[in-house]
Amino acid sequence: MAKELWFAEYHDDNTRLGMRVTRELVAMQSEFQAIEIFETPTFGRVLTLDGLVMLTEKDEFIYHDMIIHVPMAVHPKVQNVLLIGGGDGGSLRELCRYPEIEQIDMVEIDSEVVNQCRRFLPQVAAAYDDPRLNLIFADGLKFVRHNTDKYDLIVIDSTDPFGPGESLFTKEFYGNCHRALRADGILVNQHESPYYPADAEEARLIYQRLTATFPLVRVYQAHIPCYPSGHWLFGFASKRWDPLQDFDAERWNARGLYTRYYNTDLHTGCFQLPTYVKELLESGVE
Amino acid sequence: MAKELWFAEYHDDNTRLGMRVTRELVAMQSEFQAIEIFETPTFGRVLTLDGLVMLTEKDEFIYHDMIIHVPMAVHPKVQNVLLIGGGDGGSLRELCRYPEIEQIDMVEIDSEVVNQCRRFLPQVAAAYDDPRLNLIFADGLKFVRHNTDKYDLIVIDSTDPFGPGESLFTKEFYGNCHRALRADGILVNQHESPYYPADAEEARLIYQRLTATFPLVRVYQAHIPCYPSGHWLFGFASKRWDPLQDFDAERWNARGLYTRYYNTDLHTGCFQLPTYVKELLESGVE
Repeated sequence: MAKELWFAEYHDDNTRLGMRVTRELVAMQSEFQAIEIFETPTFGRVLTLDGLVMLTEKDEFIYHDMIIHVPMAVHPKVQNVLLIGGGDGGSLRELCRYPEIEQIDMVEIDSEVVNQCRRFLPQVAAAYDDPRLNLIFADGLKFVRHNTDKYDLIVIDSTDPFGPGESLFTKEFYGNCHRALRADGILVNQHESPYYPADAEEARLIYQRLTATFPLVRVYQAHIPCYPSGHWLFGFASKRWDPLQDFDAERWNARGLYTRYYNTDLHTGCFQLPTYVKELLESGVE
Repeated sequence: MAKELWFAEYHDDNTRLGMRVTRELVAMQSEFQAIEIFETPTFGRVLTLDGLVMLTEKDEFIYHDMIIHVPMAVHPKVQNVLLIGGGDGGSLRELCRYPEIEQIDMVEIDSEVVNQCRRFLPQVAAAYDDPRLNLIFADGLKFVRHNTDKYDLIVIDSTDPFGPGESLFTKEFYGNCHRALRADGILVNQHESPYYPADAEEARLIYQRLTATFPLVRVYQAHIPCYPSGHWLFGFASKRWDPLQDFDAERWNARGLYTRYYNTDLHTGCFQLPTYVKELLESGVE
């Protein structure tokens, strides 16, 4: 009998999700983090950074639909985008479906994530040859300091708030993003989970910092089974556009984009949070 | 060093959620199934039947809020309720918060579930002394055959569609429920999950059978981290009331019931399903 190989991610010290592994494809240490890609019977290929699941082939469409199509269905004309992180290429792939986007500045700290995903996750890293892409390998915090009034949309597709992604959750960073956005710009970010206590505390802090920086902040949610608890939050921070009042379902549907998770009814639904999540977020705001 | 004790639930053959166990409180075989209750650092006490997690103290409020308050916020006056399954007592507890309910016929097949939950999960099994309760230990399928035009609400709080709960997913059973409901009655049930293939196939079949029996069927969702994938569905089947058009948020809010998951904004939101879930459900309907 062949060996049984399991990957386990600890969601807290006392809870873990295990995935049977059939083959290891990548196991390396980059300048910034441990990068691993392995194959599983249930989820297809899985990318982990420092041991945490970033995406699986089975459900990456959920995260990428929700971080891109929600703001794109609100802002009437996105031309210049700043994508911070997202080295796997899934957010870039979804952005590239919008012809009105003229330029995407993508700032990823770790070129090895891009290299390995282009090789082993080509359906995710599918748009690296798009001519609108300006790919910069740099620290997102440093990059955003030098831009003012430039972007219609900033997407923060970061890892968790420790290790290489840590600076992307600071007040300084959000302030710089605010300055880098145009007068009607939108910022979206991955906003952690409300369920396990350490994640919930991060979600509370992110909301506190966003609301201290932007006049309009709303949080929305999605079912992402490969992430801890399966209950994941996204932040929508804006200088002008309201994600529900300024959302035009007809306009988005007229595009004819097929999306397996996002749809315009769900757009409205995903902003309706459970009471305990609302209480958690508001508990951090003065 | 003390032993490490872990419980694992397999979500499919190649995926498992593990919870560290600090103490086993109940491990018995009833006439119908294996009943276990154990303590965990993260989830508090956990009830499993035949090795599958039924509830945890940490998040049972989510399931019980969603199976009870959604229909109660739609139907204008629920007086007679049939609760099938739900031996842990959580659905009963939520029903008993409504003073207009006059009688609750609760049909649970396994008296040992009730006994063990009353002893070890008293905050869940909190309403067994309510005078409106008529507790019957019997097979739900057989019980419902003998009732016509009697109930305003039927709640099917069952285990999964194999073992003792299997008959509660048949066309015959749904037909009998239809007959047992009054002309404006509502049925709600736990509707499995859309994510792992075997669960998704069950969800597809449940929807197919409900739509063959009831004129109005809608599916809604909740984030329940202790269940496989964390993405769980509920069915709403009705002879008359539409869960969105006939829903009166003001009326429900005027009750002043505090709920940690449910709220009237989320009521509307939870019926907005992801595209892949809509496609799954509709794929079974002619």
